[in-house]
Amino acid sequence: MLKFYTAPGAVALASHIALIEAGADFETITLDFSKNAQREPAYLALNPKGRVPALITEHGILTENPAILVYIAQRFPEAKLAPLDNAFAFAELNGFLAYLCSTFHVATAHFARGTRWASEASSLEDMKRKVPQNARDCLKLIETEFMRGKWVFGAQYSLADPYLFRIVSWMPRFDVDLADFPKIAAHYAAMRQRPAVIRAIAQAGETI
Amino acid sequence: MLKFYTAPGAVALASHIALIEAGADFETITLDFSKNAQREPAYLALNPKGRVPALITEHGILTENPAILVYIAQRFPEAKLAPLDNAFAFAELNGFLAYLCSTFHVATAHFARGTRWASEASSLEDMKRKVPQNARDCLKLIETEFMRGKWVFGAQYSLADPYLFRIVSWMPRFDVDLADFPKIAAHYAAMRQRPAVIRAIAQAGETI
Repeated sequence: MLKFYTAPGAVALASHIALIEAGADFETITLDFSKNAQREPAYLALNPKGRVPALITEHGILTENPAILVYIAQRFPEAKLAPLDNAFAFAELNGFLAYLCSTFHVATAHFARGTRWASEASSLEDMKRKVPQNARDCLKLIETEFMRGKWVFGAQYSLADPYLFRIVSWMPRFDVDLADFPKIAAHYAAMRQRPAVIRAIAQAGETI
Repeated sequence: MLKFYTAPGAVALASHIALIEAGADFETITLDFSKNAQREPAYLALNPKGRVPALITEHGILTENPAILVYIAQRFPEAKLAPLDNAFAFAELNGFLAYLCSTFHVATAHFARGTRWASEASSLEDMKRKVPQNARDCLKLIETEFMRGKWVFGAQYSLADPYLFRIVSWMPRFDVDLADFPKIAAHYAAMRQRPAVIRAIAQAGETI
């Protein structure tokens, strides 16, 4: 059986939702980041990155949301979570996942994880101040250039949706108002009602 | 014909090398970042992100290295740049690409692109000071956990190789010595000798 490592509030919720949407049989292990469980030797032996998500398969470990998401889509093709038979459409989806991973998520990480990139208290405050505008810039780009319909890629729900949902769920922390981004606000509301989303949030021990 | 947008020194070199390795027929357009060519209205109309790489195909534009790289592997399967028939191995490759994109590249971007995430001069200096150690941490993880042989995934050259090569080529800027990472140093030296790498560097207008 698949084993999935996550933590409440973590970006791992994207892959968690996808696992449930796909009907996967998996066990959820929730790490307590407040106790630094992701830096425990036993977990580091499994995942030297000391992060989540991590998916343990019969072949070994997988990390990084974009990789785990695509793996879920390929392993459970009947869930139709990615356009696997169209290289261009698949690349558009991968480009969106990469943007969330390397630009949007990274922009938000400067709010509470600034010590990854700077040391002085004044730098951390400076970074924190810039997060709301950077988050709004990402939302604006997504709203105007990438949202094609009810779901990110139009009528067909895909891997893009749980990943966008996860990052958007953090916006209240930065006082970013979704009312300025009506398509994304509608997407967020629609996601909140999906049974897989409700179940993943509960399994991860979150309240959002 | 494919059109590929790049800039000298940019991370786009990863996809550029892969295009040549795949034997793709493509035109290279080099943007002058010193003149902010990536922010010109004509380019922004094409690629609202204002970044490179961008690959223009007959179906539309693709952005983000991980997405373009996988597209190249799928469009030119005879080049064997990715294990397309093995979902787990493909996911391991995607996980490596995502790590380079969201962790290693982002870590290095704090050296000269810190204004993305902070505003004060003292913060930018603080970020800059932290880059060498962050780069070494990434190199150490790759050296000890991910390098499986001559190429990143062992005997078979893959999309991981040009992407790692590109980021490693920046290390001298941060005074990071590859001698501490013998597998990566050997990888870098082997990459430097590949005809596709030599050609991509010349086409991008670089001297490294």
